[in-house]
Amino acid sequence: MHKRTLICAACAVLSLAAAPAWAAMPKYVFFFVGDGMSSAQIQAAEAYLTTKNGGSATEAADLLKAENRLNMSKLPVLGMQTTYDAHALMTDSASAGTAFACGVKTQSGVIGMNDQKTIKYKSIAELAEEKGKRVGLISSVSLDHATPASFYASVPSRGDMNAIARQMAASGYDFFGGGGLAASEAQTITAQMQANGYTVLNDRQAILALKKNPKSKVVCINPTLQDSAAMPYAIDRPETNLSLAEMTEVAINSLFTRKKEGKHGGWFPKDDGFFLMVEGGKIDWACHANDAMATIGDTLDFDDAVGVALEFYRKHPSQTLIVVTGDHETGGMSVGHATTGYSGYYDRLLKQTSSFQAFGMNQWKAHKAANKDGYSWTAPNNLEASGEMLGLMESVFGLAWDSLNDHQKKKLEDAYDKSMSGSNDNSEAENKLLYGGYEPIIVTITHILNERASIGWTSYSHTGVPVPVFAVGSEAQRFAGFYDNTDIAKQMAMGIWQPLPVVKATVN
Amino acid sequence: MHKRTLICAACAVLSLAAAPAWAAMPKYVFFFVGDGMSSAQIQAAEAYLTTKNGGSATEAADLLKAENRLNMSKLPVLGMQTTYDAHALMTDSASAGTAFACGVKTQSGVIGMNDQKTIKYKSIAELAEEKGKRVGLISSVSLDHATPASFYASVPSRGDMNAIARQMAASGYDFFGGGGLAASEAQTITAQMQANGYTVLNDRQAILALKKNPKSKVVCINPTLQDSAAMPYAIDRPETNLSLAEMTEVAINSLFTRKKEGKHGGWFPKDDGFFLMVEGGKIDWACHANDAMATIGDTLDFDDAVGVALEFYRKHPSQTLIVVTGDHETGGMSVGHATTGYSGYYDRLLKQTSSFQAFGMNQWKAHKAANKDGYSWTAPNNLEASGEMLGLMESVFGLAWDSLNDHQKKKLEDAYDKSMSGSNDNSEAENKLLYGGYEPIIVTITHILNERASIGWTSYSHTGVPVPVFAVGSEAQRFAGFYDNTDIAKQMAMGIWQPLPVVKATVN
Repeated sequence: MHKRTLICAACAVLSLAAAPAWAAMPKYVFFFVGDGMSSAQIQAAEAYLTTKNGGSATEAADLLKAENRLNMSKLPVLGMQTTYDAHALMTDSASAGTAFACGVKTQSGVIGMNDQKTIKYKSIAELAEEKGKRVGLISSVSLDHATPASFYASVPSRGDMNAIARQMAASGYDFFGGGGLAASEAQTITAQMQANGYTVLNDRQAILALKKNPKSKVVCINPTLQDSAAMPYAIDRPETNLSLAEMTEVAINSLFTRKKEGKHGGWFPKDDGFFLMVEGGKIDWACHANDAMATIGDTLDFDDAVGVALEFYRKHPSQTLIVVTGDHETGGMSVGHATTGYSGYYDRLLKQTSSFQAFGMNQWKAHKAANKDGYSWTAPNNLEASGEMLGLMESVFGLAWDSLNDHQKKKLEDAYDKSMSGSNDNSEAENKLLYGGYEPIIVTITHILNERASIGWTSYSHTGVPVPVFAVGSEAQRFAGFYDNTDIAKQMAMGIWQPLPVVKATVN
Repeated sequence: MHKRTLICAACAVLSLAAAPAWAAMPKYVFFFVGDGMSSAQIQAAEAYLTTKNGGSATEAADLLKAENRLNMSKLPVLGMQTTYDAHALMTDSASAGTAFACGVKTQSGVIGMNDQKTIKYKSIAELAEEKGKRVGLISSVSLDHATPASFYASVPSRGDMNAIARQMAASGYDFFGGGGLAASEAQTITAQMQANGYTVLNDRQAILALKKNPKSKVVCINPTLQDSAAMPYAIDRPETNLSLAEMTEVAINSLFTRKKEGKHGGWFPKDDGFFLMVEGGKIDWACHANDAMATIGDTLDFDDAVGVALEFYRKHPSQTLIVVTGDHETGGMSVGHATTGYSGYYDRLLKQTSSFQAFGMNQWKAHKAANKDGYSWTAPNNLEASGEMLGLMESVFGLAWDSLNDHQKKKLEDAYDKSMSGSNDNSEAENKLLYGGYEPIIVTITHILNERASIGWTSYSHTGVPVPVFAVGSEAQRFAGFYDNTDIAKQMAMGIWQPLPVVKATVN
């Protein structure tokens, strides 16, 4: 009798030359992108989750409990990727998306083309479609935003959202879900999609009904769109909305099963597999705004979607691959701050009930409208004198005025003046550094709340730190090690029997 | 004929039950700890190296060139570890060192004992020694500092350096190298070490001579000790000093070869292997001080030492294991900053010729002594009026006054006032945030130089972000995946045939 030998997936890579590459390739491929998410965002979410679950973010015994860890960080295979784009240490989401989708480096702002904008590439989603796989794309931001667009569009500028959305309408993909269209011609293009055979839904029940009665070619738009046609931040979500996990569940049902055409009816799995990309797009937006709780809320929402894919994986372990990563870090987020030193106070985040965005659109807007007439920034202690504003800081962010030190109070006073009247006594350079183009009082509230919890920020932009990759399932070992973001597309493409890049067209 | 099958190291782990664990274990184990080093420090060092080598830190084609990548980030196996200690999200180096050395969580400040300070544990170095392996410890900080101490001492407080150094003297280990002793009784303890058979060297040539004529039981102290008995920062290193790479080369020769006792003389490898720990201890100190160039200089110096181990590995690939990691991140360093957005300007770091430490001990000390009499912080633009100080900022840090914006100039003026006179017009809380206990003008210079290069900091302390692990060689696959810092000791201990933790003694 032969001695039983174990051959791991990593070793299998070595024997590619000897056997057809697709012999053992996964049939069902999930690719999760946490936009703006790197190690700090994940660690902060786990420390928050530990606290929320009744543990302490300063006790290793609590932090290491399985229920306090994210699904993604428990996956068995770990990798790390460099995120530079062709001409920037800090990539944008268009070039990072192109790296993931097409396996090529391009410059910031460009989607599905080279940095010279002369060659259009096919994405792994297009290639999967051509090979008979069904394709789904989900994003919590608009479906014509850079990351999802990278999987169906080739355009010189991510800003040309009409061109992008038209390519989406022509994609033929089976499932789109999440936000709406930010393109100015959204209405026309939606009509075009319907003409192309797509069913467009934006009702929670109608969308969830697809789990039992899946349709081919469907666009599921979240009932509420908060900003730029994106889903609301998870911490702002109304009950009538869908989570990213629910959207993922609907997508899986749509992509995996199809009504049998025969006389007996019933549900049968299709046999040619699927490729499903899920983006947590507002992790990035929350990090741009330096709002840790909005970041954490969307990271947890994203991770719940990973959990849904894991349930599918457990039913089809030998045929499923799940890869989870971020496209870059945003905000220079740190799990620690000068004001709190070696201690973490994640309990201080528990009382934030609204994202910077929802607060700005609602309570802040009303407060400013009611108080801006005659406001003078040269009057002292304007904020301290406003019981209403101090009340909002405490009720919405859990930030009590009396808990703050002199410097924190001064920063809030300066920011309040700037927000209410457009002026304060800071230099322009200081205001740019302090507020980064965001509403001064709101970004200062989140800065101070975050630093009191032991979370710091250094930027309102993306940063160039490498990003972890987590994977499980068939061929997951391909995603172990330290490599470039373009390698992710190249490794995923093996599952559709196609080395990358693949040229679609050249442009003069 | 049997079909040839490949069995990888990761799979071998699975078959431990069937075969003796030590059957294929590495004989030569290197453990490299970059204190305070996580992904941001590594990425910043690579971006700097790219620029120094004539490339651009904004071009992926340059950043991805092999010569611009660190040795560590090119190793084939990647892992990531959580760094919490028993009661803190942000570990200190004592509890992190104990995790690495003994495989147990303890509280900050404790070395080689549990968090209740009632149980003393054996370190993997002690266990290796007991199994006949030779042990070497190298650190760029003092040899009785927390990280090296964790491999030979068990003490309730890292501050009790005399107790630590006495345990070092009694360790029986073969090689110590790097800094000196910070213990107040250093002289007595050094004499004790000599009485215990150790040769103590502190001359560059005498130390390098060990490469040809290795000795057993040797302590190699770098000729110049800069601060707290530590080696100077790499960017300050006099030619009479040794690099961490040179120290590692000497250690390898001392641990690997020994003069044959027989009549023919000559060099023969010993057969029982070694365990060598190398710490880049001042990466952490530079990060505490928020000095990116001192950080990068010591990260590159540390990585050169990894390169020396790699040369050894190439000669003994099947018998050698190299593991490289950090014990925690320090400083909340980011590869990006609000003032520079999506652009990196690493060329702006090229002109810094001195660490914050050396500048403080030399040029700054002289400048302050010559100018402090009669200094009044209420006089306007003191710094701008000091040609000497502006000249130092430009000649030592490459920071030209005219290149700064109003806010940067104001921050420098405030800091200069505080440094020169002890006062400025900031609140105490603001000064604590801005300077963190460091010399105000110096830390403000590095802050501004760093942000102009696109590097940010959020803390003067450690942070809780996970840290990557890089490995190569025999059993390297054990270090793939995402795990806890205590798992590193447990996996390394397999190489010395011993599951951890191992109790040494209990204390009432």
